[in-house]
Amino acid sequence: MALSEFALIERYFRGCGAERADVTLGIGDDAALMRVPPGCELVAAIDTLVEGVHFPPDSPPESIGHRALAVNLSDLAAMGARPAWALLALTLPQAEEAWLGGFATGLGELARTHEVALVGGDTTRGPLCISVQLLGFAPAGEVLTRGGARAGDVLFLSGTCGDAAAGLMLEQRRLTAPAEARGWLRERFLFPTPRVALGEQLRRFASACIDVSDGLLGDAGKLASASHVGAELAWNELPLSEPLVTLLGERHARELALTGGDDYELCFAVPPHNVARLFAQLPPQQWRYTRIGALRAAPGAVVVRDGTVMEFSHSGYEHFL
Amino acid sequence: MALSEFALIERYFRGCGAERADVTLGIGDDAALMRVPPGCELVAAIDTLVEGVHFPPDSPPESIGHRALAVNLSDLAAMGARPAWALLALTLPQAEEAWLGGFATGLGELARTHEVALVGGDTTRGPLCISVQLLGFAPAGEVLTRGGARAGDVLFLSGTCGDAAAGLMLEQRRLTAPAEARGWLRERFLFPTPRVALGEQLRRFASACIDVSDGLLGDAGKLASASHVGAELAWNELPLSEPLVTLLGERHARELALTGGDDYELCFAVPPHNVARLFAQLPPQQWRYTRIGALRAAPGAVVVRDGTVMEFSHSGYEHFL
Repeated sequence: MALSEFALIERYFRGCGAERADVTLGIGDDAALMRVPPGCELVAAIDTLVEGVHFPPDSPPESIGHRALAVNLSDLAAMGARPAWALLALTLPQAEEAWLGGFATGLGELARTHEVALVGGDTTRGPLCISVQLLGFAPAGEVLTRGGARAGDVLFLSGTCGDAAAGLMLEQRRLTAPAEARGWLRERFLFPTPRVALGEQLRRFASACIDVSDGLLGDAGKLASASHVGAELAWNELPLSEPLVTLLGERHARELALTGGDDYELCFAVPPHNVARLFAQLPPQQWRYTRIGALRAAPGAVVVRDGTVMEFSHSGYEHFL
Repeated sequence: MALSEFALIERYFRGCGAERADVTLGIGDDAALMRVPPGCELVAAIDTLVEGVHFPPDSPPESIGHRALAVNLSDLAAMGARPAWALLALTLPQAEEAWLGGFATGLGELARTHEVALVGGDTTRGPLCISVQLLGFAPAGEVLTRGGARAGDVLFLSGTCGDAAAGLMLEQRRLTAPAEARGWLRERFLFPTPRVALGEQLRRFASACIDVSDGLLGDAGKLASASHVGAELAWNELPLSEPLVTLLGERHARELALTGGDDYELCFAVPPHNVARLFAQLPPQQWRYTRIGALRAAPGAVVVRDGTVMEFSHSGYEHFL
């Protein structure tokens, strides 16, 4: 079936995201036009998903569309920013209608959930590869970064970690699991939940924040390094999901929580004097986050179990090593 | 040679573009932070280059870096916007230092020429594919679009057309030419010049503007269609470069000028009452643009030669047909 680039964009992507009053000109011209609210800074992220690298070749198109936006929403969440406008660079081998429909559904549902408008993009032929650029904003000077934390700050993690890495292994049939655990863990990989609302709230409490995309230990290390401190994670306090523990046993589950990627949870530091206020205004049971350690003066990121530092050979995903 | 993603970004991309005072936070965090000037709208474009589709597999990396930014600069030029900040999504099979050095040089030189800062990006492993997202701004309400032209408006084109298509054929060895013509035409494909300064000036004169990336006839048709009018191009007035005419002869040169892609010239409409002012304030000899036709009420884009409409079978590049 031959579908022109124009027809493809009209059919699947116009109206795919939210409608926003601050979009002066959306899809269809040489560029898109938007209005950033007065007093706000512009926040911009770009992330790419490549078939066979970031998702298995037979992944459902709904998941690919969802994840292409989710990874960027997670980046903006880590800055405490409000997402607003997305541009999509979609490279695909052929214009297959069922695939495009699924992809646009996955992307569009998540976009509308977070009131993100799809304002532009580029569609080209080639190996399946998706880059989403996400734009948003935050009050000037209030954005969260990876830097800014100090020794003594408490380290927290939203949700649970390791689930998506197990979900990917199930998806690739490198693991097997009972149907219920399999369904939940695969969902964690295929349809991650970016912590956008939590990120915006954290601007009032956190000293630094990062999203966990390449493995908790490595990403906590990046936050610590950007803040010129070190991180100490407590082995026994890492939050694990029940399906992950059931599937792997506690030891392997904790290892995967530290080194597995694709979780898109937030890892954030809170100065000690803010912790009581954090707990009061964002109750941990409701907002689902856990204390996992603290920042310290000595550089590096380590895991401590019963007072002893543990050794890990691999602290996160690296593309070119 | 193993180069980590972090080392790769530090070595080749930090400091690759211009430094700008309006960048609050550049490369290295989850997202970049910028300040849009008060009274301005944000303008955003994204364009992708795929190896084997947009450039031959053995293209010089300097050219790939240059073109990845140039195609987006051309989109912003077509809006009359000032470019400011770029994000780079770079997918490549391996981290080869010579290639990365050349790519960063090509991208960086063009970025600095136009005072564009490289504020962020994503580097992943996969088939060679480059998406650049370019952000800029323009005074609110003054941006040029494809719509807005009326029947009777005069149609102009910057530079000359067809050169890049011939340059690509030379690059692919589908054509041969004497050394001098070959060098100039290849340069037009490998290192196109986006008309950024002209685009900004045209805000004061033009009713509509588009950049010519997929072929002049098709792109003039898109401008006309967005303006709810038609376009009539004068066969004898299409501006041709001397090397192109020498290489192909006049007839084939004019055909290629109409249907070849990758020129990144601006095609713009000017209301008759603005033409004298345009000529006076932007002298055509200095700003290098030519009257190529006019807009008319009847829809579609046609080419007229000695009072007769000519037939063309192909009006521009389509990715999925």
